[in-house]
Amino acid sequence: MRAWVPSHITGFFAARQQDDPSLSGSIGCGLCLALGATTSVEGAEDTEIFLNGVASVAPVTRYVVEKLAKEPVRVKTELEMPFGSGFGASGAGALGCAYALNAHFDLGLTANQAAAVAHVAEVANRTGLGDVIAQNEGGLVVRLEPGAPGTGRIDRIPVSPLKVDYVVRGPISTRDVLTDPALMKAINQSGLAALKELLKRPTLVDFMRLSRCFTIQSGLASQWAIDALEAVECAGGMASMIMLGDAIFAFGGHDSLKSFGEVQTTFISQRGANLD
Amino acid sequence: MRAWVPSHITGFFAARQQDDPSLSGSIGCGLCLALGATTSVEGAEDTEIFLNGVASVAPVTRYVVEKLAKEPVRVKTELEMPFGSGFGASGAGALGCAYALNAHFDLGLTANQAAAVAHVAEVANRTGLGDVIAQNEGGLVVRLEPGAPGTGRIDRIPVSPLKVDYVVRGPISTRDVLTDPALMKAINQSGLAALKELLKRPTLVDFMRLSRCFTIQSGLASQWAIDALEAVECAGGMASMIMLGDAIFAFGGHDSLKSFGEVQTTFISQRGANLD
Repeated sequence: MRAWVPSHITGFFAARQQDDPSLSGSIGCGLCLALGATTSVEGAEDTEIFLNGVASVAPVTRYVVEKLAKEPVRVKTELEMPFGSGFGASGAGALGCAYALNAHFDLGLTANQAAAVAHVAEVANRTGLGDVIAQNEGGLVVRLEPGAPGTGRIDRIPVSPLKVDYVVRGPISTRDVLTDPALMKAINQSGLAALKELLKRPTLVDFMRLSRCFTIQSGLASQWAIDALEAVECAGGMASMIMLGDAIFAFGGHDSLKSFGEVQTTFISQRGANLD
Repeated sequence: MRAWVPSHITGFFAARQQDDPSLSGSIGCGLCLALGATTSVEGAEDTEIFLNGVASVAPVTRYVVEKLAKEPVRVKTELEMPFGSGFGASGAGALGCAYALNAHFDLGLTANQAAAVAHVAEVANRTGLGDVIAQNEGGLVVRLEPGAPGTGRIDRIPVSPLKVDYVVRGPISTRDVLTDPALMKAINQSGLAALKELLKRPTLVDFMRLSRCFTIQSGLASQWAIDALEAVECAGGMASMIMLGDAIFAFGGHDSLKSFGEVQTTFISQRGANLD
């Protein structure tokens, strides 16, 4: 049994944490990408988790296994996206594992019920707040109210399966950001303002514009990131920072990114998580 | 500007009609198929709607144009699915038109907001109750509470992009069924029972089993349809009737369907409506 989950890059967000992790999450907006995580599950003597072929602690996926697996399983996740740079890799692994375990053990969970387990695993491990609900849907997802899939409220902005360029310079620790009160205050203020503004006119262009404002206002951007997005804009493209990674995504202006690192290209995924 | 919308075949349903069409709809469960409708919009002297290259009255799509278009437009829909046999063709045309107009006139509607206009167009024309909200999502969609996209409540049953066979014998008028009180009473009773039963164990196999029960209990099946689905089951497959068409869909048992008409094959669409 195999499941597939898209990447998810957040453009802007505001954290909404509560005691109950299924009510916690974030509001904001982000984009699902065709770079996917494929997770398979099979019976085993002891539970083992492999990430790109290497045995891994994988605490978020392990949390899902502990909640859903009836017997020991071997979980294998193959990631097409970078890890730790804001592509929602931990959420993708956990969400794919939840779908695959649901199928393997014939648990009879709906998509939202399976995904809610992965959402709680992310929130409990402080590795993410809004990736799972967006990855479960696909496309350009607006997170209107926080919470697990089926509890939180989302909508989409219609969008073609456009080409997206990205450059990754390095990781940013989601946990470090989420536990920094001063930083989180700036993030939550500018994230809420960006969401309110987006809802007046929810289009891809406005998503990019407001993500760029958030990048500056939140104080999360490195000088490298600011230089890169300005270079794209001077070349007539739109760019913003990937939340949370020291990384840039862009529509257009491909060549202008070359001096900032290796430019990779993918597409918007209109498809959300599902069995493979 | 072009938009793509999958087919949607309902396995079972119960109508939930109210005065407000955005609160009206149906509960039940159905499957999105890769047979799609592609709709393009361009400026024109006078508003014209073409269906598979032929000028058409297309009242459902016209309703959407009247609500959303700021100027006269030429709307062209190419349908891969049969018309009038339960594949949600009218919903697909209306939904694709709403997405395409939103992009063409840069209206800034979210996916749910654009889709809600198509839902209301279907309900007002009595051509459908639950196709649009499912087509907007993709996959195997459970309609938990009726209403327009963003108002009604849905979930998905995880499912691979499996091959689906189908045979169409002829159309059934949705309007005729929806306006027959005795028939609707039987439909609503068996549809609600099927949904309650499905939610105890939401899997593809149970969806097929409960759709088959509904096919018999609702009184909608022709003898042809009953014979066809029994033939598939004797060959080890699963089949049910497409609501509302004199048509059968099946997983497995392909050869056993051959004596019932031309067997066509498509796939489950995990992707919902979006820009092309």
